[in-house]
Amino acid sequence: MAEKITKRDKDYSQWYLDIVQHAGLAENSDVRGCMVIKPHGFAIWENIQRALDRMFKDTGHVNAYFPLFIPKSFLTKEEEMAEGFAKECAVVTHYRLKTMAGKGVQVDPEAKLEEELIIRPTSETIIWNTYRNWIQSYRDLPLLINQWCNVVRWEMRTRLFLRTAEFLWQEGHTAHATQAEAEEETRKILEVYRSFAEDWMAMPVLTGPKSEGQKFPGAVYTLCIEAMMQDKRALQAGTSHFLGQNFAKAFDVKFQNQAGQLEHAWATSWGVSTRLVGGLIMTHSDDQGLVLPPRLAPIHAVIVPIFRKAEEKAAVCAAAQQLAAAIRSLPPDPWLNYEPWSIKVDDREQYQPGFKFNEWEVKGVPIRVELGPKDLASNACVLARRDLPGKEAKEMGVPLASAPERITTLLKEMQSKLVERARAFRDANTLEVNSYDDFKKKLEEPGGFLWAHWDGTRETENQISQETKATIRCIPFSRAKEPGKCMVTGKPSEGRVVFAKAY
Amino acid sequence: MAEKITKRDKDYSQWYLDIVQHAGLAENSDVRGCMVIKPHGFAIWENIQRALDRMFKDTGHVNAYFPLFIPKSFLTKEEEMAEGFAKECAVVTHYRLKTMAGKGVQVDPEAKLEEELIIRPTSETIIWNTYRNWIQSYRDLPLLINQWCNVVRWEMRTRLFLRTAEFLWQEGHTAHATQAEAEEETRKILEVYRSFAEDWMAMPVLTGPKSEGQKFPGAVYTLCIEAMMQDKRALQAGTSHFLGQNFAKAFDVKFQNQAGQLEHAWATSWGVSTRLVGGLIMTHSDDQGLVLPPRLAPIHAVIVPIFRKAEEKAAVCAAAQQLAAAIRSLPPDPWLNYEPWSIKVDDREQYQPGFKFNEWEVKGVPIRVELGPKDLASNACVLARRDLPGKEAKEMGVPLASAPERITTLLKEMQSKLVERARAFRDANTLEVNSYDDFKKKLEEPGGFLWAHWDGTRETENQISQETKATIRCIPFSRAKEPGKCMVTGKPSEGRVVFAKAY
Repeated sequence: MAEKITKRDKDYSQWYLDIVQHAGLAENSDVRGCMVIKPHGFAIWENIQRALDRMFKDTGHVNAYFPLFIPKSFLTKEEEMAEGFAKECAVVTHYRLKTMAGKGVQVDPEAKLEEELIIRPTSETIIWNTYRNWIQSYRDLPLLINQWCNVVRWEMRTRLFLRTAEFLWQEGHTAHATQAEAEEETRKILEVYRSFAEDWMAMPVLTGPKSEGQKFPGAVYTLCIEAMMQDKRALQAGTSHFLGQNFAKAFDVKFQNQAGQLEHAWATSWGVSTRLVGGLIMTHSDDQGLVLPPRLAPIHAVIVPIFRKAEEKAAVCAAAQQLAAAIRSLPPDPWLNYEPWSIKVDDREQYQPGFKFNEWEVKGVPIRVELGPKDLASNACVLARRDLPGKEAKEMGVPLASAPERITTLLKEMQSKLVERARAFRDANTLEVNSYDDFKKKLEEPGGFLWAHWDGTRETENQISQETKATIRCIPFSRAKEPGKCMVTGKPSEGRVVFAKAY
Repeated sequence: MAEKITKRDKDYSQWYLDIVQHAGLAENSDVRGCMVIKPHGFAIWENIQRALDRMFKDTGHVNAYFPLFIPKSFLTKEEEMAEGFAKECAVVTHYRLKTMAGKGVQVDPEAKLEEELIIRPTSETIIWNTYRNWIQSYRDLPLLINQWCNVVRWEMRTRLFLRTAEFLWQEGHTAHATQAEAEEETRKILEVYRSFAEDWMAMPVLTGPKSEGQKFPGAVYTLCIEAMMQDKRALQAGTSHFLGQNFAKAFDVKFQNQAGQLEHAWATSWGVSTRLVGGLIMTHSDDQGLVLPPRLAPIHAVIVPIFRKAEEKAAVCAAAQQLAAAIRSLPPDPWLNYEPWSIKVDDREQYQPGFKFNEWEVKGVPIRVELGPKDLASNACVLARRDLPGKEAKEMGVPLASAPERITTLLKEMQSKLVERARAFRDANTLEVNSYDDFKKKLEEPGGFLWAHWDGTRETENQISQETKATIRCIPFSRAKEPGKCMVTGKPSEGRVVFAKAY
């Protein structure tokens, strides 16, 4: 398998698709733009969901479910939203098929909907239409609701996980009695996303607002987490929107405040999607295949018993199962949200150890345990870490008795190492530029995140993106107050913003 | 709130809707036939998902995700399926809207799809179209895949949870090398469903095949779990289908068997849906509100501190929090799949204890703990069980030190009691009838499950259902071999089948 994976420096795009294919993560379906998420890819998404869902609940949120369909008229109620989403929607116009003699199945022209239904591209409209009945008084607030679901945006150019017509995501929709509380929520969720990205995905992110040109249609402002992929392009990994009273006004959601006056509710919405799986792949993987941060790996360690003769097999397989059981019965670890360690024993007979080593390497299992008759004779095993090259990866003669502890220690080390490595990569590919000429040059070579002064206007932003394909990814919270001049117009700027080419 | 719930014996249908509303489980949306699942209702579904998902994984299944959209032509490939599902589908015909001056948003006539897309009513077709590329050799088998998702069937008469246009479910789709293995899988899943229904939902079920007239379109046969609701109607709660080679033939899925010959793969599919939440409500709830089996309750116990004066409040609230913490830190219990006990302290100041008692009663929290200054003075509390009437429900003076153990014991007792009570109810409403006249009479009064002889033909089955509205719910595995005569035609029968009116 590994020999079929295109090298990153040869063709990064193809490398990505090769990883997705060979690691068994996803594939294109026969429905244009829609993907099939295969079991190994879906298991990663399940781990993402589990960790995030717990973080949402720990911050007081609950889950609910709203309809897939949105009446067409809802989309027009919030003006900016209508502009932003009306272009790329799947539209349901009929509700029945009928069998026509000799012609197969046809849409029944008599079953036309009075009002067309849109497959949700995001659910602000249907949810705020529902909230109208839920919110009467300040006592009903805040509403802190999240939904895990599928959404559809009719994208013309799709790429597995990164941009697909249908994708899976979570969308939080909260309602608050005051602006301050809604803004606090917007930031609180951004911090949840930042911490999830860095602590679970081992993917360092910049945090801060988007520019006006890049914000969510319908938001007052959008906060984002923004990551750098290995080709130095940016990936928007999660967004948290402060919606002001825009949707409350559009859907007439008013409550009686403590002073007895009617007021429109304040809103936030926020989401991350299966795009994160793409980000995970492009942050850590290498030319041999997938590399996964251990906290999100569907399998933490694979034990490969090595044997030639039948009499060897029984003994090494028994020892392998025993070791697996010992790891699984370690005390629950908060590092893994008290979930059990996931250990696989690969005792398939039809494949040679070399084939198995390669398969699990491509699939990104963090630790491989080799266990042969000689190891067993000395009550030991060999450990190999997925993230280190060649001999560095191996630990020989690890006593079986201490192997469970050693394996979990290595998993934690690997998790830290991956985020350090990714951070070092990002920092090494971050530059300050001071002139537009230099900007255009550096954007092509070496590329990366370019910190530059900008005059804050939409016009300049548009000009830069049209001329260079770079966009403002983030106005980082961490930026220094540094008076300067816009690299394009020379007008004053309060500080640098981050430009990059992006997915 | 409770006074607004219609009594069961007055209007069962309205009682059901009142429970769904007052317990905050779901509501109708502005999209015809689609419901909003509210947080309390969704939390029950999440618990159902968690328990079932673990059972699927423990039996070797993995999750994946397939597209929401099905090309229209796929539906015609399996003939019976086309007949069975073509009538009630949401059809996507366009992929873009455009803003028309003065007319709001309109469907863009230029963005018409070449082939219409159907929102999945079930995914056999798109999944078997995908499996064609996944299955080459017997080594690729079995495929044991499950999907959690939304599906749409354009139902004309809908009822919250029980029948909605969009609903949530899981659908398993497995592929096997032999008929025997696929049939074994069909039964294995039925056993998972039976055990889940009885051990988690506390809802006793009959198990066995459906008649030809009631099977899934496209199946060779359908096995089911069938429950009785409190109005003595039957609820189909889960189905497991043996699909033979029907879908493999329709989608040309062949594999090389061990003998080197090409053969069509063998299939099963199986599913349960949010309908189960409806079944849960109708099996256990009473005129006061929702009653939940503790293993699926989103909150296991609510602690209500009782205080009048400010100086009392601090002490009882502290004691309440301490008790909650003590219950939460009990050792993980396999009875609850090692999940933590979910305990709520209701220390809201704006409501009186009586209001709170009522609210949690309506919402079906299994155990209420009352803790006032007098209780605290004697280091004790009062426990009240949701499933028992009046004084019987209460245990006074339970020492705080032993309350955590006592509460978990009571939860387990309540779980057993609920399934016993439901089983006794079903058995008390199960009758054998021997003539069609008697059948028609008993069906109206007293109703329930009627075991009767039937000649095994579709014609007789249709006649009975047209004349009486009763259908064959199940041909129970447990039935005795009892030669008899069909109550309608007098033709021979090998044993009785179960008739009932159904949801």
